[in-house]
Amino acid sequence: MSNVKVRASALERYVVSRLREKGFAVVRAPASGSKRKDPIPDVIAMKDGVILLIEVKSKQTEGTIYVRKEQALGIMEFARKSGGELFLCVRFPNEIRFVEFSKLRKTEGGNYAIDVEVAKSGLTLNDLVRYVESKRSIGLDKFIR
Amino acid sequence: MSNVKVRASALERYVVSRLREKGFAVVRAPASGSKRKDPIPDVIAMKDGVILLIEVKSKQTEGTIYVRKEQALGIMEFARKSGGELFLCVRFPNEIRFVEFSKLRKTEGGNYAIDVEVAKSGLTLNDLVRYVESKRSIGLDKFIR
Repeated sequence: MSNVKVRASALERYVVSRLREKGFAVVRAPASGSKRKDPIPDVIAMKDGVILLIEVKSKQTEGTIYVRKEQALGIMEFARKSGGELFLCVRFPNEIRFVEFSKLRKTEGGNYAIDVEVAKSGLTLNDLVRYVESKRSIGLDKFIR
Repeated sequence: MSNVKVRASALERYVVSRLREKGFAVVRAPASGSKRKDPIPDVIAMKDGVILLIEVKSKQTEGTIYVRKEQALGIMEFARKSGGELFLCVRFPNEIRFVEFSKLRKTEGGNYAIDVEVAKSGLTLNDLVRYVESKRSIGLDKFIR
């Protein structure tokens, strides 16, 4: 396994473990990576009916983070069907951030990209958990009303 | 791999494939089976925010289907956290049925069991899909109101 895959895998396990601690039901996609014909986001985390789909990226190339076209289209389609919300998880030296996938831009080649500076403005893990909990309360309010 | 595991795996793949055809975002749990410390249902299928968690059973013992205590408690906990609905998928010679997990009874030893005759009254795959679609419309109604 390449170093990049090892790093991505360790980051995945870290994200899974932290979200479990926060009360999420979490599953890592089997055989994650670019070889699947039917791409699935690396991590699926659910809490009280809210679905988070998380693609994990530990590799950065010259200040930009790329997701290959086939993978990006596949996981966007998966997110659309599921009704869940798709995030890109990016690791920086001292923190990890979760960026809404819709903030990525499409490159001329059809790949998806985001600049590191933009990714840094993403949510922390605690922000993400609070976001899910706020969605959940809105759901409850609707139900009670 | 034992014959039982091979049969269960083929049934899992069949269920995954049929639900994908019906427009679900589907993932098989990695390393499914009884060896996990943190049991996860065999199949997770999502559509428009509705979460189905499916435990697949191809083995029957003298007219009764059993789910071991640790596995049953683990997947019930997973379902509770996720806000999804847990079903047992049972294969009969000419059909498969989906039974709400709450219909299983607890045995004296703490395992969970359901008689084949009761399981036969479960939902067909098409019933299950219709059920999910009806839940989804209720959600939309609430939203529009």
